[in-house]
Amino acid sequence: MNETTSDSVRNVLFIMCDQLRLDALSCFGGTVIETPNIDRLAARGVRFDQAHVQGSVCGSSRMSFYTGRYVQSHGARYNRIPLSIGQRTLGDHLRSQGVRTMLIGKTHMAPDRDGLATLGLDPDAPEAMYLAECGFEPTLRDDGLMPGVADRSELPYNRFLAEHGFGGPNAWHTAANSVLDEDGRRVSGWLLRASKYPAIVPDELSETAFMTDQAIDTIRAAGDDPWCIHLSFIKPHWPYVVSEPFHDLVDPLDLPAPNRSDTELEHDHPVLQAFRDLRVSRAFSDDDIRRTVYPAYLGLVLQIDRHLGRLFAELDRLGRTDDTMIVLTSDHGDYMGDHWLGEKDWLHDEVVRVPMIVVDPRPAADVTRGTVSSELVEAIDLVPTFVDATGEITPEIDRWLEGQPLTPLLHGQPQEREMAICQSEFAYVELGPTDDPRRRRATMLRTDRFKYILSETGPDLLYDLDDDPSEQRDRGDDPGLADKRSELKERLFEWFRDRSNETTLDLQRQLRSSEHGLTASAQGVLIGYWDEAAATADGADHHL
Amino acid sequence: MNETTSDSVRNVLFIMCDQLRLDALSCFGGTVIETPNIDRLAARGVRFDQAHVQGSVCGSSRMSFYTGRYVQSHGARYNRIPLSIGQRTLGDHLRSQGVRTMLIGKTHMAPDRDGLATLGLDPDAPEAMYLAECGFEPTLRDDGLMPGVADRSELPYNRFLAEHGFGGPNAWHTAANSVLDEDGRRVSGWLLRASKYPAIVPDELSETAFMTDQAIDTIRAAGDDPWCIHLSFIKPHWPYVVSEPFHDLVDPLDLPAPNRSDTELEHDHPVLQAFRDLRVSRAFSDDDIRRTVYPAYLGLVLQIDRHLGRLFAELDRLGRTDDTMIVLTSDHGDYMGDHWLGEKDWLHDEVVRVPMIVVDPRPAADVTRGTVSSELVEAIDLVPTFVDATGEITPEIDRWLEGQPLTPLLHGQPQEREMAICQSEFAYVELGPTDDPRRRRATMLRTDRFKYILSETGPDLLYDLDDDPSEQRDRGDDPGLADKRSELKERLFEWFRDRSNETTLDLQRQLRSSEHGLTASAQGVLIGYWDEAAATADGADHHL
Repeated sequence: MNETTSDSVRNVLFIMCDQLRLDALSCFGGTVIETPNIDRLAARGVRFDQAHVQGSVCGSSRMSFYTGRYVQSHGARYNRIPLSIGQRTLGDHLRSQGVRTMLIGKTHMAPDRDGLATLGLDPDAPEAMYLAECGFEPTLRDDGLMPGVADRSELPYNRFLAEHGFGGPNAWHTAANSVLDEDGRRVSGWLLRASKYPAIVPDELSETAFMTDQAIDTIRAAGDDPWCIHLSFIKPHWPYVVSEPFHDLVDPLDLPAPNRSDTELEHDHPVLQAFRDLRVSRAFSDDDIRRTVYPAYLGLVLQIDRHLGRLFAELDRLGRTDDTMIVLTSDHGDYMGDHWLGEKDWLHDEVVRVPMIVVDPRPAADVTRGTVSSELVEAIDLVPTFVDATGEITPEIDRWLEGQPLTPLLHGQPQEREMAICQSEFAYVELGPTDDPRRRRATMLRTDRFKYILSETGPDLLYDLDDDPSEQRDRGDDPGLADKRSELKERLFEWFRDRSNETTLDLQRQLRSSEHGLTASAQGVLIGYWDEAAATADGADHHL
Repeated sequence: MNETTSDSVRNVLFIMCDQLRLDALSCFGGTVIETPNIDRLAARGVRFDQAHVQGSVCGSSRMSFYTGRYVQSHGARYNRIPLSIGQRTLGDHLRSQGVRTMLIGKTHMAPDRDGLATLGLDPDAPEAMYLAECGFEPTLRDDGLMPGVADRSELPYNRFLAEHGFGGPNAWHTAANSVLDEDGRRVSGWLLRASKYPAIVPDELSETAFMTDQAIDTIRAAGDDPWCIHLSFIKPHWPYVVSEPFHDLVDPLDLPAPNRSDTELEHDHPVLQAFRDLRVSRAFSDDDIRRTVYPAYLGLVLQIDRHLGRLFAELDRLGRTDDTMIVLTSDHGDYMGDHWLGEKDWLHDEVVRVPMIVVDPRPAADVTRGTVSSELVEAIDLVPTFVDATGEITPEIDRWLEGQPLTPLLHGQPQEREMAICQSEFAYVELGPTDDPRRRRATMLRTDRFKYILSETGPDLLYDLDDDPSEQRDRGDDPGLADKRSELKERLFEWFRDRSNETTLDLQRQLRSSEHGLTASAQGVLIGYWDEAAATADGADHHL
């Protein structure tokens, strides 16, 4: 049983939004909307404004958030790739410390049904639950992707909607994510023209409201037992429709100009060209479309902020504010037309640099409250941060983790932070007749000043962020930066060499000890001794 | 039920020796002893004289042999590092084809007890057997490392010895691997001075005899059901003692001169210096010790050849010779004083280039019988070769495999073979006060002509094998080869980037299909469509 002391926290509230841009939040400098509840959270904690995800799409990014491991290491490189039964997650680690870890919302985790079957485990059996649910106790799983008109009436959110008058086989689709246009016609929220109309369901029946309600109920029911709750909103991810009044709170004239230039349009890198050619990129490069969708997107953020206000008030009421670590972050951003792109998947800051707020309730964190840290941190740092906060990073846990706990930074102490890595997989993007599909991958190495991207297709890319913070000028062929590119490539090579699946036992650590030889000798494994005298002189056992 | 046809074989006999040097066998050009039974095997199949293991020590190498995956990918980087429950092995793949896969002898596999416990599986429960035994049905497991005087009388080989008059708590140690010296004193076989005396047990009670007996019994019992038997001798691995008459068949004067030079002694690479400084290296650099031990080592090889003769005769008698694929190989070699080194662990040919004989009984292989192939092949090629021979490499199996089936080479067809990789881990070797233990690793890339070694400690190494087949002159700092080193380093970087744990689902392959977008659209996931007309034009379902 954990007790909150000055050294540990009792609970973890790990809030994730999906596809939330850093600049949507006023506490991160966003200018279009105010997010007062999130801002108040930030005032109690540290805003990390150089926090990077490890994968540029939901699935790969989340598996890094949940395992504390790079995409290269956990292997779930894209959406719908199952996380191997050979991996461990946040839930596994915290459970070993006696902390229940519950999920409300989205994980985008695909269970390794094949791996479970090999072990003779039924993926649908209760004992396989943690393996099938990414290590979480699925209080309410909702991956937020329930299109189509097939009967999905048994889904919890659809049952909730039915109880409140929105029935049918899939009210998620036909009510919560649909609108009525000016002619009274029902329009799917998947169509971008729908964004200017309010969702058919009212705010209090929205998915965001429903998930918040569930979180509040779960926290109430948990009482004083320690918990980690992953409240994982599916918004502001598409479908980009939001209930009244949030659909109409942003004036398109207030939107920032898109971060894009004609120079970028002329850039002939085959991968960037292919991304720009995608339908979604062409759509968001159209100013009319952007001006239609972006306000709804920001409305979804406002809606989240509103409901988080309810949640934080309840934490206060329950006396949980002072013993709960609270994190708010996102699995990646959204281009929204920046760089002539839509959606995510590629490696500009609009996608890979996410908001991250960490509130550590311990007194040791008082020195950093309300501050901004511009250290390079990574999504994989959260698992060690949570484990460190609620207990101890034992060697058994540590061998799985590739991130570093944020604890020193939260407590105002220095910590070496030299780089961040993100990997992009775009197997679905066709690049031309000579393209090898296996090479539709890229890895980004970000340092304090530079962003280097090794694309398996096309030349390497390099951005000097001091000089070009908007990432509009690729310096991949700038002769003046050749040495820098070589240096960053070498560091990336070292990073790749450091990856391995060595997770079962940190024998190296044991072997590194000079006692290894003696241990072996003491067990009678004698290597290289001529005779009894030589063995005895070395303390080795040669007895029979 | 598999039927032997011209396209498939019924059984696989996968024979491995431990620590067997390529040049010990007469069919690979060895000049000291004759190994007639192995030579006859070679006459029926293909000798691969450029076959490379993927790890330079038993554990890592064997896990590559058994998984068909590089060490970087399976993660069991050294002895005693458990193979993750997230990996699959030969046994798993063949079992899925209806082929029983049985083990007689050594695997050196450490079960992932921690991983099993996380799944709620008892590592000692029958249902965990395959996971605990590297995918094999352990007909007789014997890892050949049973030193000490603790009571090990229940081990099968010790029970066998007891039945034949050699009792006690651990007759493996005190009889099979001990000798009587000229004074009648019992000497542990772990001491090198013991090598000149015969083992206390006679040949017919040796571990090699015992394992061969077990293999014969198993093949007899299997009848006509298809099987894969991994007969995995622990010899000629140390302890280097062998029964009469094999201890005395080699005249030390017939031994080849050690492959070493004073130039090598002067080579100041920190890793090579540290290896040369090991006790075992100093021992084998002593000519007297080498002349004492090497004959016993070759005696152990002769003993294996003798017993394989019995086994092959039994296969003939049972009519199995014509429907059984037979492979003979080794997990690595033994320095025996070459390059001033003992044991293994580093990356010279004496360690990483192993004998590999493959007999394919199918008529299609008639064109290559008795030939030598000098293509660069790897240990990880065997799993796909076996799966391909007994059935089909389905996509579900293929996604695990990093090697290529040898089938084309066995059938006289061309196959692209550009390089071989081997990884070395030497965490136990201390390199000096400034040494970072995490950097005690190296990766070798072998091409047709060059061997490039990227050592994490010290400079890179390069051998030009055309010019220097004995690997006595490191060209790592030769300015004339700078471009070659860069090229090989770049290829090695590509190889590292191609590794991943993506084993659960080949979603990429699916995503690479241009149908991905259409599939998503048909399911109602509409990305980037403005309105109904745009969706309809693209065949996407926007219905409500």
